[in-house]
Amino acid sequence: MELDFVAWLKERLPRSPETRIGVGDDAAVVDLDRPELVTTADLLIDGVHFLTAEHGPELIGRKALAVNLSDLAAMAAKPAGAVVSLALPFEGCAAFDSSEVAKRLIEGMLPLADEFGCPIVGGDTNTTSGPLVVAVTAFGVPAQTPVIPRCGAQPGDWIMVTGSQLGGSLTGHHLRFTPRVHEALQLAEQVPIHAMMDLSDGLSLDLKRMCLASEVGAVVEATKVPISAAAERVARASGRSALDHALSDGEDFELLVAVAPDEARALLADPPCDCGLTCLGQFQSDPAILLRQPEGTELPLSAGGYQHR
Amino acid sequence: MELDFVAWLKERLPRSPETRIGVGDDAAVVDLDRPELVTTADLLIDGVHFLTAEHGPELIGRKALAVNLSDLAAMAAKPAGAVVSLALPFEGCAAFDSSEVAKRLIEGMLPLADEFGCPIVGGDTNTTSGPLVVAVTAFGVPAQTPVIPRCGAQPGDWIMVTGSQLGGSLTGHHLRFTPRVHEALQLAEQVPIHAMMDLSDGLSLDLKRMCLASEVGAVVEATKVPISAAAERVARASGRSALDHALSDGEDFELLVAVAPDEARALLADPPCDCGLTCLGQFQSDPAILLRQPEGTELPLSAGGYQHR
Repeated sequence: MELDFVAWLKERLPRSPETRIGVGDDAAVVDLDRPELVTTADLLIDGVHFLTAEHGPELIGRKALAVNLSDLAAMAAKPAGAVVSLALPFEGCAAFDSSEVAKRLIEGMLPLADEFGCPIVGGDTNTTSGPLVVAVTAFGVPAQTPVIPRCGAQPGDWIMVTGSQLGGSLTGHHLRFTPRVHEALQLAEQVPIHAMMDLSDGLSLDLKRMCLASEVGAVVEATKVPISAAAERVARASGRSALDHALSDGEDFELLVAVAPDEARALLADPPCDCGLTCLGQFQSDPAILLRQPEGTELPLSAGGYQHR
Repeated sequence: MELDFVAWLKERLPRSPETRIGVGDDAAVVDLDRPELVTTADLLIDGVHFLTAEHGPELIGRKALAVNLSDLAAMAAKPAGAVVSLALPFEGCAAFDSSEVAKRLIEGMLPLADEFGCPIVGGDTNTTSGPLVVAVTAFGVPAQTPVIPRCGAQPGDWIMVTGSQLGGSLTGHHLRFTPRVHEALQLAEQVPIHAMMDLSDGLSLDLKRMCLASEVGAVVEATKVPISAAAERVARASGRSALDHALSDGEDFELLVAVAPDEARALLADPPCDCGLTCLGQFQSDPAILLRQPEGTELPLSAGGYQHR
């Protein structure tokens, strides 16, 4: 089926002026704005990151590209393209044969690819006795040099997150979220950002990662955490608090940002992005990561984030 | 296991001066020689491209990187880095637990990565209920602009291949071959190359692809095809001829090259590479692809190359 699929791709994929050679040669060739590459890879598996029995291939394809775009956003990089590798179950999945699954995965990616200037320029396709695997590698160029790492948070920096909905993502958001590519570029243009990453494994775990990388600690104000309606719903069933879900559920795909206080105030006074921006607390030199309760007591914030098996 | 594996990678992976940000951030950042990217992806699956029960993870890792380097070679691109995504069976494989499999896959890649200046800069790791999947995306920069495509063969061009051993690769060569990166750069520096690709699915099928892309036909001299000892061995068991295996077996990973006759003669008189270089015949304007028998008759060369399921 690979030859037919490649022929279909050559017809179906829009060609960007930057794509010198696209699908169908040994490798793709893409002109970049500058000689600096930002690249990230995510491999998604049926039963782990999505359920083919529940989610259509289009949404699965969308997610596979979106999580990569979210990683590019975390570096304030401008997307330039992606390659897509598929391991398709012999027998197909979700009532589609393997060829139809492949096409629908790509169809699900195309609107995002178009919206974020990230053409699909190549990839690989095989069939497997195992579950569907979608492996996307996206690449881009940094909007600024040096690139924003996750290790630059300073004591005193404000802890900020984009969006206003944390937690409960697996009820639907993880398939439909908008990667914060534009927001990252807008923020980076507005103020110096000390550190940035995307929230993929839960705020508490990802914050711990940023703290460890930056050799700082943090105090999060429990009252400031933006809790999603989905987290509230999930909490009613789980017996845990909605706050707990907002702190530890994975796949929010919002940006976690460290900014100096004056710059953070300026951002909050005149937010460059429409998606919402919240200050959750502050980084500190003490390596402890604490959650300040409404009444003022500070408890260790356990990194109970979501980790795939 | 992902956090432990990332910690291990950070210790184990050599850092190149061009790698601004390596494993452990949301994305990798790499300085390129020029603002032009060549990128290719291959996804390898247990039972299709290798057998974990027979081949150790090191050789599997080596192959996964090597096939990508071979694709970069086909564009005469200089490797600049790779990202590695793994779907590791929960229960491990080949007597190793999943963490050990991951490390050994990487260990198998490192000598090649070093030899070809292709540092591993990022990736993704997950566990799966299915077979081992190794998805590598490699990138590089073109040694020359415009890049050598597979569509540029001209009628009259000589059909050349590197190496002197076609066929029977699956008996061992496919795990241990040397990607023709250096040879591609040497050839491209020496003469104008009209078209180039790597032989991954068998000479007859890959030649057909080059002919279709270039809108030409070809005549291959049966007596000129370099037949490997492995093809001879396989032929004794299969009942097919060794020539047939040399023409149709997959995974030779040699370069198929189209060069104007005068340039081709110059290359043969003074080969820039040590691996061997053979002229197999000529491209022609007639779209037929023919095999000229020793006695002079010309038969259609069926594209019986190896296609993965």
